[in-house]
Amino acid sequence: MTKIKVSIVGASGYTGGELLRLLLFHPNVEINQVTSESYTGKFVYKVHPNLRKATQLKFSSASELQQCDVLFLCLPHNSSQNKIDFYKSIAPKIIDLSADFRLKNQDEYEKWYGHKHVRPELLKEFVYGIPELHREEMKNANYISSAGCNATASILGLYPLFKNDLVFEDRTVIEVKAGSSEGGNKVNEGSHHPERSGVVRSYMPTKHRHTAEILQELSFGKNIQVHFSATAIDIVRGLLATCHVFLKKDLEEKDIWKIYRDAYGNEPFIRIVKENDGIYRYPEPKLLSGTNYCDIGFKKDENSNRLVVISAIDNLMKGAAGQALQAFNIMFGFDERTGLEFTGLHPI
Amino acid sequence: MTKIKVSIVGASGYTGGELLRLLLFHPNVEINQVTSESYTGKFVYKVHPNLRKATQLKFSSASELQQCDVLFLCLPHNSSQNKIDFYKSIAPKIIDLSADFRLKNQDEYEKWYGHKHVRPELLKEFVYGIPELHREEMKNANYISSAGCNATASILGLYPLFKNDLVFEDRTVIEVKAGSSEGGNKVNEGSHHPERSGVVRSYMPTKHRHTAEILQELSFGKNIQVHFSATAIDIVRGLLATCHVFLKKDLEEKDIWKIYRDAYGNEPFIRIVKENDGIYRYPEPKLLSGTNYCDIGFKKDENSNRLVVISAIDNLMKGAAGQALQAFNIMFGFDERTGLEFTGLHPI
Amino acid sequence: MTKIKVSIVGASGYTGGELLRLLLFHPNVEINQVTSESYTGKFVYKVHPNLRKATQLKFSSASELQQCDVLFLCLPHNSSQNKIDFYKSIAPKIIDLSADFRLKNQDEYEKWYGHKHVRPELLKEFVYGIPELHREEMKNANYISSAGCNATASILGLYPLFKNDLVFEDRTVIEVKAGSSEGGNKVNEGSHHPERSGVVRSYMPTKHRHTAEILQELSFGKNIQVHFSATAIDIVRGLLATCHVFLKKDLEEKDIWKIYRDAYGNEPFIRIVKENDGIYRYPEPKLLSGTNYCDIGFKKDENSNRLVVISAIDNLMKGAAGQALQAFNIMFGFDERTGLEFTGLHPI
Amino acid sequence: MTKIKVSIVGASGYTGGELLRLLLFHPNVEINQVTSESYTGKFVYKVHPNLRKATQLKFSSASELQQCDVLFLCLPHNSSQNKIDFYKSIAPKIIDLSADFRLKNQDEYEKWYGHKHVRPELLKEFVYGIPELHREEMKNANYISSAGCNATASILGLYPLFKNDLVFEDRTVIEVKAGSSEGGNKVNEGSHHPERSGVVRSYMPTKHRHTAEILQELSFGKNIQVHFSATAIDIVRGLLATCHVFLKKDLEEKDIWKIYRDAYGNEPFIRIVKENDGIYRYPEPKLLSGTNYCDIGFKKDENSNRLVVISAIDNLMKGAAGQALQAFNIMFGFDERTGLEFTGLHPI
Repeated sequence: MTKIKVSIVGASGYTGGELLRLLLFHPNVEINQVTSESYTGKFVYKVHPNLRKATQLKFSSASELQQCDVLFLCLPHNSSQNKIDFYKSIAPKIIDLSADFRLKNQDEYEKWYGHKHVRPELLKEFVYGIPELHREEMKNANYISSAGCNATASILGLYPLFKNDLVFEDRTVIEVKAGSSEGGNKVNEGSHHPERSGVVRSYMPTKHRHTAEILQELSFGKNIQVHFSATAIDIVRGLLATCHVFLKKDLEEKDIWKIYRDAYGNEPFIRIVKENDGIYRYPEPKLLSGTNYCDIGFKKDENSNRLVVISAIDNLMKGAAGQALQAFNIMFGFDERTGLEFTGLHPI
Repeated sequence: MTKIKVSIVGASGYTGGELLRLLLFHPNVEINQVTSESYTGKFVYKVHPNLRKATQLKFSSASELQQCDVLFLCLPHNSSQNKIDFYKSIAPKIIDLSADFRLKNQDEYEKWYGHKHVRPELLKEFVYGIPELHREEMKNANYISSAGCNATASILGLYPLFKNDLVFEDRTVIEVKAGSSEGGNKVNEGSHHPERSGVVRSYMPTKHRHTAEILQELSFGKNIQVHFSATAIDIVRGLLATCHVFLKKDLEEKDIWKIYRDAYGNEPFIRIVKENDGIYRYPEPKLLSGTNYCDIGFKKDENSNRLVVISAIDNLMKGAAGQALQAFNIMFGFDERTGLEFTGLHPI
Repeated sequence: MTKIKVSIVGASGYTGGELLRLLLFHPNVEINQVTSESYTGKFVYKVHPNLRKATQLKFSSASELQQCDVLFLCLPHNSSQNKIDFYKSIAPKIIDLSADFRLKNQDEYEKWYGHKHVRPELLKEFVYGIPELHREEMKNANYISSAGCNATASILGLYPLFKNDLVFEDRTVIEVKAGSSEGGNKVNEGSHHPERSGVVRSYMPTKHRHTAEILQELSFGKNIQVHFSATAIDIVRGLLATCHVFLKKDLEEKDIWKIYRDAYGNEPFIRIVKENDGIYRYPEPKLLSGTNYCDIGFKKDENSNRLVVISAIDNLMKGAAGQALQAFNIMFGFDERTGLEFTGLHPI
Repeated sequence: MTKIKVSIVGASGYTGGELLRLLLFHPNVEINQVTSESYTGKFVYKVHPNLRKATQLKFSSASELQQCDVLFLCLPHNSSQNKIDFYKSIAPKIIDLSADFRLKNQDEYEKWYGHKHVRPELLKEFVYGIPELHREEMKNANYISSAGCNATASILGLYPLFKNDLVFEDRTVIEVKAGSSEGGNKVNEGSHHPERSGVVRSYMPTKHRHTAEILQELSFGKNIQVHFSATAIDIVRGLLATCHVFLKKDLEEKDIWKIYRDAYGNEPFIRIVKENDGIYRYPEPKLLSGTNYCDIGFKKDENSNRLVVISAIDNLMKGAAGQALQAFNIMFGFDERTGLEFTGLHPI
């Protein structure tokens, strides 16, 4: 069997490392190159110590990139767009994990990111990377832009409700609880352990850029608002989105069940988690570490028309590398679950 | 100087232990008795190891209670109301830290607590225990009912806005992130360390009983709704309430500042925390461990009329024992800060 | 290909759940039954929520056990020995994960466990379950007794030194730092989150039963002592053994390197971890969550003949279920790594 | 009453901030100046957010230092010795919290610190800062050098045994488990939260500089060795020293009790912690956060002559700022406990 030759640009970061970990065990993949400008020439396990004994690969410089079948871009935001022609010359297919090509509307990009987009004409060439919403487009796509982690959890949690026009969109409040790996591997004052440990830090009460993606994917042609906040807590991996929506008509929980089952019943990576007893009655991100699942639960308020939708993912997996690999599998016609079988640990 | 003789009923729990810690160092207080049915005859430091070398007190049984000046009741909910006549016979003044006498309306009590109130005629004798809202009543009160911890943070965060009729009350969404000490010192399946560690657990997405207190204190004669959820995270002490409110008119942040300053400018235990830089820009519960502060911050959304109000307390202090002691100080005309001077640790 | 039919007795605990997780993905295994007396008839994912969507298995009662090829016993200590005849009647091969058959010497068992062994004549039928020491015996074994987690890390860390008679055995001090999953899934006062969180708890400064296994495997016919202590810290999975040994002759670090390379150079699950720079210079248990690795490092004291040997494992994997599966693979002639390929997460 | 005028040099670090917190509430102290070169002109609460509303002090530059009664030096190591004449010109009494003047022997300093001491003739002018060992000298001292945190816990734990010649000194193994605040407030790769969280990191298996202090204080004229290692764990404050010593003669636990009682019976900040039941049977650093206690416990091994001594402190309090304030109180004849009354929190 011929293997797909892939390279990862920016493989020394957390997202790149996670993708590399997955690709090393993918039966249809041959890793061609992994690049890092800071660690060129070094063994990847020096940066990703979990890969000791798993690989003898070394980092290359992006300038040494050779032709391959697929290029994964795991670069900081605002990098891909500046060198996109070069990357296109390296591989016919690109999966970009940065924010550069997520938004289809140039104005929205510039509003939320605060600077001009260098290549706005390419925005529409990229398929937005959530497989559950864009699977068909992905099958023939050359360019995919993976979704933001907070956006992924929020969109997957709310999609069936918004699509079916069941909620007052503008009243939606989304509160994400996020771990420290979301901030990447660069040290900063706020990530210093004595300061970051034990926090419940309102790091982005308004203006989070992922809001723009949520609006794009959930507006269905309308002009809607959603109200997003993010709070950092003392976990490393994982995020939970608690989404408060207000129903237009009086639905019971069994109706909601049906709506979610209709939307996601065949999805390999979505689980509806809603138990009446036990201690894991709703989605719990710690159970998802290393998995590609998005777990979704909900609870209807008996005293009002509020529905609380709870959505959990591993930000580095379903929120980044796992999502990208799932898209890759779709792109090439592999079983979507290939390389993504890990079921998570308990206890952890 | 004559000291006030106080006894604590139910002193082996977390709230009772915290209150005991505070009272031991209060210059105007003499501790008469501390009761525990499970630990009668044992040294209190066997249960509260932080009090080693601080006291040689032993637990008594409640049946041995002697006359004193004030009785603090730190019992499980639904206990005080059943023996209230006995407690009244012991002391002329009572501060109850349970939920039994918080709600003034019997129907509301029965709706949220799911059972009949045994002594509904007494509900109105108790002053609701948040000093910032009920200071004048406390000065002449004999009976005070301390507020719930989640309610305290939510009410203090929202009071100036609701009182001045600045928000659409029914759209309010309150999301509390809570620590494990809120659940008390009784072991249960969900508190087992391997299961409780690292969680982001939606333990009460709807129907949290503290909602009733919030409605009581913030309705100002109207019939309002608020939407409350609570998520358990991996901290022991402290809680953060993230409150999403929607403004009736277009207020700028400097207007909001003024409203909070007017409401709380002279309050010894409320700090407005809102910085433009640094890593502690908003309230942070870990900084409040052991203190009686309620820190309040806010952020106006530039894209909508949403205001995010962020309120943090130590649930065992301002949310329980500290609040009760502050009320006690007011009751007896002491400086409110007496015994509550601890300013918190950093780093922690 | 015919699959091996296996059953797990006591599959609702942490060790049994971990083993089940591994076996579900083992290509040569068919899971016949998993038993639990408390959860008979319940879906296993109710107890092991990480297995949602991975299996529809339900728990049986041990009394319903059917014939199979291998029985894994994941019972509390002092259970296997009482029903061993029954288990032998169910399957020709047994891998016992409890402590019942680890010690070959009946007197030692009774000294450390404080009670009579019911079937001492069987002690010698069980091969002690560390593959790196007993691989050849395992190939033809019918009965294997998996090693204790603390013992596994300590023995693997020290084996090359003791075997080669390089240290003063009696001066050895071993200090294990352990997570809360080691205590199993039964709630107790000490495992209550507010009490267990943040601890550095000297839970077993002396008399830890795993000491007996260390002595058994490292004595090589001599009468030796080692000094073992265990401290509980705020992690769930993983343990680190810091072993202080004193060298009989003046060896340099490169000599030590050679000794470990000779002992473990071909071992699939042992990695020598010793870096001169970076932040993961020595073994780090958090990197091992879900993996079967034992990482071993060391540092020679320049001022004395002390060598500090550092050994890390995941207590539920290499310290229990992973070790048992590795032994199973050896028993049946499979590649030892089958089902144990997971390389661990970073960051985590 | 005239207050003592004190200034803190280097008050923006963790140790300086902790000292400032204590001094602000000391009834006999007036804070003159607090210096920081990086934050000159800024409010101290911008750096120490726990001091919001507690003080309106601003940082000065050390170049602006005015005459005062006592100078506390909270500088990085190797700073005090270079400007000691200047500091002496500012205040007649100095308490240095760095390592510069801890060792009395110049050769030892240079061996462990790897560079020349600039002012070796001053080494003997400084009293080593552990009050329990040097109280009498402190009463007339002008210069005190506070001890290292790991050294403090180790020395206090072992002092009664070494002083009474009860152990084979050279066999002593000390294992410290330490929190992240020990590393100070400077960000580095190893303190990045995703990397530092959950670690059991062997950061200093050998060669820890605090070993030199332990040797100095415990040698009593002999030439001894002790074997020290330090492991970083996921706590912020606090450290536990597990000390393995080997007794020269057969002492029972009640004999050991007597030895510790004789040594520390009247000490206000030492507690012997050794319970037969309960969950806090030995010293536990989390209970000590914010306190000046050193808790000491022990366990005799029934199978050998090993005694495990367990010693816990808050590294920023008894290991730094609290110790310094206790010495200050002795220097000026105040009750040693003044300003150090905080008894610690439970749960935490």
